[in-house]
Amino acid sequence: MPVNLTTPDPASLLPVAGVRLGIASAGIKKPGRRDITLIELAPGSRAAGVFTQNRFCAAPVTLCKQHLAHGHIRALVINTGNANAGTGEEGLRRAHQTCEAVAQLMGCAAESVLPFSTGVILEPLPVDKILPALPAALADLAPDHWPEAAHAIMTTDIVAKGASREALVGGKTVTVTGIAKGSGMIHPNMATMLGYVATDAAIAPALMQQLVKEVADISFNCVTVDGDTSTNDSFILIATGQAGNNEITATASPDYAALKAVVSAVAIELAQAMARDGEGATKFITVAVESGRDHAECKQIAYAIARSPLVKTAFFASDPNLGRILAAIGYAGVTDLDVTTLQVYLGDVLVAEKGGRAASYTEAQGAAVMQQADITVRVILNRGDAAATVWTCDFSYDYVKINAEYRT
Amino acid sequence: MPVNLTTPDPASLLPVAGVRLGIASAGIKKPGRRDITLIELAPGSRAAGVFTQNRFCAAPVTLCKQHLAHGHIRALVINTGNANAGTGEEGLRRAHQTCEAVAQLMGCAAESVLPFSTGVILEPLPVDKILPALPAALADLAPDHWPEAAHAIMTTDIVAKGASREALVGGKTVTVTGIAKGSGMIHPNMATMLGYVATDAAIAPALMQQLVKEVADISFNCVTVDGDTSTNDSFILIATGQAGNNEITATASPDYAALKAVVSAVAIELAQAMARDGEGATKFITVAVESGRDHAECKQIAYAIARSPLVKTAFFASDPNLGRILAAIGYAGVTDLDVTTLQVYLGDVLVAEKGGRAASYTEAQGAAVMQQADITVRVILNRGDAAATVWTCDFSYDYVKINAEYRT
Repeated sequence: MPVNLTTPDPASLLPVAGVRLGIASAGIKKPGRRDITLIELAPGSRAAGVFTQNRFCAAPVTLCKQHLAHGHIRALVINTGNANAGTGEEGLRRAHQTCEAVAQLMGCAAESVLPFSTGVILEPLPVDKILPALPAALADLAPDHWPEAAHAIMTTDIVAKGASREALVGGKTVTVTGIAKGSGMIHPNMATMLGYVATDAAIAPALMQQLVKEVADISFNCVTVDGDTSTNDSFILIATGQAGNNEITATASPDYAALKAVVSAVAIELAQAMARDGEGATKFITVAVESGRDHAECKQIAYAIARSPLVKTAFFASDPNLGRILAAIGYAGVTDLDVTTLQVYLGDVLVAEKGGRAASYTEAQGAAVMQQADITVRVILNRGDAAATVWTCDFSYDYVKINAEYRT
Repeated sequence: MPVNLTTPDPASLLPVAGVRLGIASAGIKKPGRRDITLIELAPGSRAAGVFTQNRFCAAPVTLCKQHLAHGHIRALVINTGNANAGTGEEGLRRAHQTCEAVAQLMGCAAESVLPFSTGVILEPLPVDKILPALPAALADLAPDHWPEAAHAIMTTDIVAKGASREALVGGKTVTVTGIAKGSGMIHPNMATMLGYVATDAAIAPALMQQLVKEVADISFNCVTVDGDTSTNDSFILIATGQAGNNEITATASPDYAALKAVVSAVAIELAQAMARDGEGATKFITVAVESGRDHAECKQIAYAIARSPLVKTAFFASDPNLGRILAAIGYAGVTDLDVTTLQVYLGDVLVAEKGGRAASYTEAQGAAVMQQADITVRVILNRGDAAATVWTCDFSYDYVKINAEYRT
């Protein structure tokens, strides 16, 4: 069950001026399931994205990159139930066919449409089901359909994921709303499964790519559920420019910082929601590695802990089997790490220092922290000023059950 | 349950001239459990080892390296139930204390004793239980106690692991017998949990380290169960020199090749046994990556597949969800990999080529292979002459159960 996470109150997902969303059912995997989402952007909107670095990237990812280079994005079309990945040339053809159909309905170029797919890999995209459902999605377009879209993009997610914030940027109130899906095959490398964050702020096209990359690196790129990097990871940032702020034209400006802060807050909430709703999750784990020599070594150690099946099953069992955390630190690959000078905390409890168990540590202290649903592991390396944080969940029977039964 | 693996017939484990083994019960974790193994080597025996590269390596690993540098090894002492890892200075002191006690009983120097521990990390080694049990282990020494030793070094193993071979080396029959333990926290980096292989062949001390390294790289270093590299991995090769062959003094000699072949055969059988007895295993998986540019990229891709929880749960479900294998190939980190030119086989069935599902592939073919207990995944990269093979097992409910309940 999701850990301290519930479907957001629909009223909490604020409309973003210039963005409308429509849902429809194509019956890709199950008849009647709402599996098509169309997002319409007002003319003049900007979009930028980061995508999976998986070499077997999906056909829609390839097309998204091409279309973003073209520049004038007017629509996003998302299907669940089929990933259109591992589908070769034919997959590209079918993704393009979907863009063309949307373009025809909306009166724009096919290059102005971004396609996204999520679901089973290696099976042909059923365009015969998708194309007939598009008119219904178009007819459904409305500014307040964010909650419905958050539901329609789910696959093995239990809880729909959405977040909104308002902030002052350049003296104007800007709105940021985002939705995301993902709870398995989550170990993003550039971005994560599917995430869409829209703002009405005005920002120069040249800054969009940097902003989306910076935000991804402190949000979606800090989550792991099972260490598997998806073929379809995509994170798209949209800026409609309708908030009335002066266009942000420099990353050094205070307005850029203000916008980045609010967009990051939404993205981090969505990213953490993925780990809270990680397949089979019963606990939400934050791994914070501090005072390292550089960010890379901190992240390497944080991910070694967060990916370890042994650490994750110990959290599932609420067992303070802390030796498994030490083992993961030790094999993380930081070859000159001196294990006698680091400290490990579980919550507020010092559990290890000087290469072994802390003298002050008692099993009762560890067991008490392990009972909590939200747990932080802190590793203090004592050799520099860098830090990194990774979010993950525990590893339960239900992870195996969900993934053994996903397709069959 | 172990996959096509049973406890070896005791008669099949051949004595090695110059080696005697004794077992005793120290009651470290459970009263009455045989948890102490003593291996005595005749004077003039040679030993070499490879060990974990985990930075949190156990105290006995540190001592083993020091004592092997000293050169005249006369005894090995192994306890289960406690890993003596993450135990700092005090852990080293207690490991040394154990060596001293063995040395006193056997009339040799403490530096001639190699200590090994396996079990829970981060808890003090109970020397108060171990030392009193050593005389009984000494009294039990016998050349034919290999089967008993194979049992006594087990932890979460279900099946005892041992193998023997005879071969002609330099015109003489040499015997090679080995035992090993390990079924979880298995992702060796230099060597694996605990493996001991002894031969009566004569080989120069200077060649021992190279031989043990070469053998480890094609046996224990090709196994993964859960991707967790242990703090205690140790693989020790012993050569008593009593077979009567002329001492092997050059790695270029045919005798070196003959000895390496037979030692490797024993080590590979033991390494595969670990994956067959991997925690919760229901299937034994061989991942063979061929015609790559170099060994490193082949191994990288093989391990990405063999470590993926999604691939492993699909095998558990006997579900030919082959997209997960493609995804793992794609995120393995070979950044210039062209996925349109590689082929993937499941058993003898071509499942993917040209970046997608093979035209000839049918779900029925994939499902038929998935029913088998021993399955080979072959990836043909078509870009060179290198190859690598990795052995692993599937990922089941029982993996979670075993590791959630191991300590509690």
